[in-house]
Amino acid sequence: MASSSDNTVFIGKKPTMNYVLAVVTQFNNGNRRVNVKARGRAISRAVDVALIAQRRFLPQVEIGGIEVMTEEVAVDDDERTNVSSIEIVLIGPDEP
Amino acid sequence: MASSSDNTVFIGKKPTMNYVLAVVTQFNNGNRRVNVKARGRAISRAVDVALIAQRRFLPQVEIGGIEVMTEEVAVDDDERTNVSSIEIVLIGPDEP
Repeated sequence: MASSSDNTVFIGKKPTMNYVLAVVTQFNNGNRRVNVKARGRAISRAVDVALIAQRRFLPQVEIGGIEVMTEEVAVDDDERTNVSSIEIVLIGPDEP
Repeated sequence: MASSSDNTVFIGKKPTMNYVLAVVTQFNNGNRRVNVKARGRAISRAVDVALIAQRRFLPQVEIGGIEVMTEEVAVDDDERTNVSSIEIVLIGPDEP
């Protein structure tokens, strides 16, 4: 059984299709729920990843919810800044 | 009474705080619901705008919902491409 962190895809600076493939692979491995997470500028890419994965490869998968948050990150030893983050939950169909 | 398009703030390439001010102004003008919309790379900024407006200026306002969509846009006379978009709905408190 997959642990809860296994089914999260963190979006970084790689090409969008790398992350789309990661999402599709998670569903093909039997996960019924995949979280797509991103911070800062990668948020736009996370939305692309979720929509492309769903439209092109996973027509039965639906967006189960979207949350946005503010996270505090350390930019230096004594400096902290706020960054926005997003979590998009993709939900697959019930098992037959 | 404001028409439905009046309470939408479209996010473009201006500084984030310009759009935050626009959102805050909409609420101060009596709107109880403001939509923050963006496409493509501006999606990240839209999330920033919604969260900064809420956290810093509008503590009673809540995120009522977030939707992401794929839109088809014309890049040329005979070429069309897909672009992701987001709509974040901010909801103010009920009138006293």
